[in-house]
Amino acid sequence: MDLALGDIANLVGGQLNGDAAIPISGAAIIRDANAGDITLADKAQLASQLADCRAAAVLVPPDVTPSGVPFVTVSNVHASFAKIVEHFRPHSNTQPYGVSAAAHISPTARIGRDVVVYPTATIGDDVQIGEGCIIHPGVHILAGSKIGNHVTLFPNVVLYENTVIGDRVIIHAGAAIGAYGFGYDTVDGRHKLSAQLGYVSIADDVEIGAGTTIDRGTYGPTSIGEGTKIDNLVMIAHNCRIGRHNLICSQVGIAGSSTTGDYVVMAGQVGLRDHIDIGDRAILGAKAGIMTSVPADTVYVGIPATADREQFQKQAALAKLPDMRKQFKALQRQVAALAEKLNDAA
Amino acid sequence: MDLALGDIANLVGGQLNGDAAIPISGAAIIRDANAGDITLADKAQLASQLADCRAAAVLVPPDVTPSGVPFVTVSNVHASFAKIVEHFRPHSNTQPYGVSAAAHISPTARIGRDVVVYPTATIGDDVQIGEGCIIHPGVHILAGSKIGNHVTLFPNVVLYENTVIGDRVIIHAGAAIGAYGFGYDTVDGRHKLSAQLGYVSIADDVEIGAGTTIDRGTYGPTSIGEGTKIDNLVMIAHNCRIGRHNLICSQVGIAGSSTTGDYVVMAGQVGLRDHIDIGDRAILGAKAGIMTSVPADTVYVGIPATADREQFQKQAALAKLPDMRKQFKALQRQVAALAEKLNDAA
Amino acid sequence: MDLALGDIANLVGGQLNGDAAIPISGAAIIRDANAGDITLADKAQLASQLADCRAAAVLVPPDVTPSGVPFVTVSNVHASFAKIVEHFRPHSNTQPYGVSAAAHISPTARIGRDVVVYPTATIGDDVQIGEGCIIHPGVHILAGSKIGNHVTLFPNVVLYENTVIGDRVIIHAGAAIGAYGFGYDTVDGRHKLSAQLGYVSIADDVEIGAGTTIDRGTYGPTSIGEGTKIDNLVMIAHNCRIGRHNLICSQVGIAGSSTTGDYVVMAGQVGLRDHIDIGDRAILGAKAGIMTSVPADTVYVGIPATADREQFQKQAALAKLPDMRKQFKALQRQVAALAEKLNDAA
Repeated sequence: MDLALGDIANLVGGQLNGDAAIPISGAAIIRDANAGDITLADKAQLASQLADCRAAAVLVPPDVTPSGVPFVTVSNVHASFAKIVEHFRPHSNTQPYGVSAAAHISPTARIGRDVVVYPTATIGDDVQIGEGCIIHPGVHILAGSKIGNHVTLFPNVVLYENTVIGDRVIIHAGAAIGAYGFGYDTVDGRHKLSAQLGYVSIADDVEIGAGTTIDRGTYGPTSIGEGTKIDNLVMIAHNCRIGRHNLICSQVGIAGSSTTGDYVVMAGQVGLRDHIDIGDRAILGAKAGIMTSVPADTVYVGIPATADREQFQKQAALAKLPDMRKQFKALQRQVAALAEKLNDAA
Repeated sequence: MDLALGDIANLVGGQLNGDAAIPISGAAIIRDANAGDITLADKAQLASQLADCRAAAVLVPPDVTPSGVPFVTVSNVHASFAKIVEHFRPHSNTQPYGVSAAAHISPTARIGRDVVVYPTATIGDDVQIGEGCIIHPGVHILAGSKIGNHVTLFPNVVLYENTVIGDRVIIHAGAAIGAYGFGYDTVDGRHKLSAQLGYVSIADDVEIGAGTTIDRGTYGPTSIGEGTKIDNLVMIAHNCRIGRHNLICSQVGIAGSSTTGDYVVMAGQVGLRDHIDIGDRAILGAKAGIMTSVPADTVYVGIPATADREQFQKQAALAKLPDMRKQFKALQRQVAALAEKLNDAA
Repeated sequence: MDLALGDIANLVGGQLNGDAAIPISGAAIIRDANAGDITLADKAQLASQLADCRAAAVLVPPDVTPSGVPFVTVSNVHASFAKIVEHFRPHSNTQPYGVSAAAHISPTARIGRDVVVYPTATIGDDVQIGEGCIIHPGVHILAGSKIGNHVTLFPNVVLYENTVIGDRVIIHAGAAIGAYGFGYDTVDGRHKLSAQLGYVSIADDVEIGAGTTIDRGTYGPTSIGEGTKIDNLVMIAHNCRIGRHNLICSQVGIAGSSTTGDYVVMAGQVGLRDHIDIGDRAILGAKAGIMTSVPADTVYVGIPATADREQFQKQAALAKLPDMRKQFKALQRQVAALAEKLNDAA
């Protein structure tokens, strides 16, 4: 499966700078590249890493000109590198075999054309599934759920009753959509579960990471807006309304009834309290503890979180505090000496 | 399925204030309500939100009197609203079909009356299951586990060997009960797993959220006390003993051998170190990093956590620190000037 | 199943100090021991807890000599106590029955000798599994994965396509290995998923906790080094390279392309940003927010994290800040008074 460097240049429509006959045996990022591999450098800053790299050649965009290594210049370095990787590590041609006889499908479920359902998946009463969906093994879709077209549910995804899913949604392994909300009334010293009559509604083009959990609303939907991407092990509580095109990184937790606007970004391990509203395009820094609503177009960081400028001032002052404390004691002594001197003078 | 507002008042035994003929076509919370819906307002503070809401009517408790919108007054607004929601979105009448032939059940397992076991569930040797339990698809109950009456295990729950579960317990999708504890001895540069002879014991009326993990004890039980409620993606480590009627919110992590009293509350993303004890009715604030035992009836917040009063003083002082730093420099200059003046005078 | 204390001493080859005829009916740690149980005390500091314990006898190492309770002295107290626990709570002798006919295995998969595959597990095209592996129910191994010898996959583990697993690896319930990395390019206001051509590579003797997720690399591997142990609900993002013999505690999150050396320890709920490098033997304290690379042989704590000494100075200064603030105001007043006095004198 070796390829000459000239053939690789042809494969990606790139401009070759170096010996076309060099044999290339694999493709890997700079950190992992071995002798014989082609690698990629998408920024000029990677030059120093390239110098230490054993790769036989490198794929670059037009504004990067490496020295001391053959290179191929292309306009879209990532798309081209993907093509090369796929040459060396081709996708196995798994033949999807339609709806497996070893899946368990309610007679009242309706399944669209070109749907694949793997063995051990279960599909409950009155479930509707659109065209071209892929339902992996161990997926369990409870009664009344409605799924759009070209949706992929990876193994062991669980959809509770009445979940609504749009088109082109991807949900990764083990995500749980629609479990009970964590709402309790304490009566006579015992916690009583609140109503669990709602469901989860997920709009088109949403992607949800492995192990993520989104709880159903109390009376109506917990909803995720179009195009929003959610990473692994994220928790979104009951009654939340997440806006469109959000990016929610791993291990974020959003408490009940909070809402976000569009294009909100939350870095890893952010926590939001309940019943607050995050404005459009707000950015919440890693590990931020958000205790108040956040205005649009702001950056919040810290625990408890504030606007970033305020937080940086605090952190800078805190870093200098041990020093300031020493200076403060010195100043106290100086003032005491002055006071004595003044007393003596009087 | 439309209902006149007067019929809704009758359905919930409420007092109508408005036109009984108004047609109602759905029920939703204030944020989500459309024209034609009935909504609910359980507090007078919601009046301003009601003013912006398109709902055709509102359900209220006796101490709330909205203006400008027809309303129905009831004593228990949440129970009544649930009844209305169920009218508009009735539960599908899934017929539980007993023990599925497509479940995999050991011949030595004993299963009580009126138990439902869905396809693809597996039940190991010597497992005992009480009456009226619901075992969803993809649940795997390993050998020797004992489950009480009226327990619900949602899809893909895993119970490792010898797990003990009380009555009326609910465990949500993907929770893993009884995995190995994270205990290692490092011998000759290699980490060797400690003994894994224990199990997990869960008392009556406990509820456990989706994706939560509770590890087995080293030699005996990791235990969860009666009536305790645990949210999603919580981690409870080996040998912990959690008390009764705790509320443990999402993404909390409790390290090995720690214990809690009764009625402890932990907000989201709290972390507890190992081998500490949390007193009865202690409250641990969101994201708190608990590094010491916590006395009963106290509130701990912060990282590292302290009693809340202490923490608020620190935070208040920190917020004023950038300002204090400026004043401090001014004071240094003033003292230097004074010292010079005094020298000149001498 | 009762045993005389003398028989227990014989069972573990220990030295008895007390009445050999005392009947022992169980074994439990000090906190949980009832009358009739034998317990263990591995450190002299446990003496005070022993005094309050109802155990009939105690197992101790040579350097612990309890008073007022019969004891058995052994060289390895934990191994010996494990033996006693196993006497009272023997492992059920489940007969592994080879490869279940109710598992779903591709005709192109190759499975080694003495492998157990439980019902409802699925194994995809071209998968290779070595000798002596145990594949629990609900495990789904997607096409092209390669698994070494003596590997245990607990229920509902998911391996995505082309996952590579070494020998003696243990993966706990619900872990998801190889889901898509969270990498997006935003084009015309829509987030487009990056290439997902890589896979996850896990070396020998790695152990992975319940619910943990490890995402595939973009073009090549996300890799976990030999002997590394990972706790529950940990997130390791795409392209990370984790070194050998790391200990990664529960709920840690590591963002994309970061690397660790050997023998790194991360306490619970630590977060690492992307593209940083953690040196050999570094220790990252609980909840640390690691925003920069960390040198070898250092301890980092805090949010944002710094070397521990720096952090402790900050925290100590912060704890005294409310007090310092009062003293500062007093000093301001004193200086003002001095200034006035000096003016009057002039």
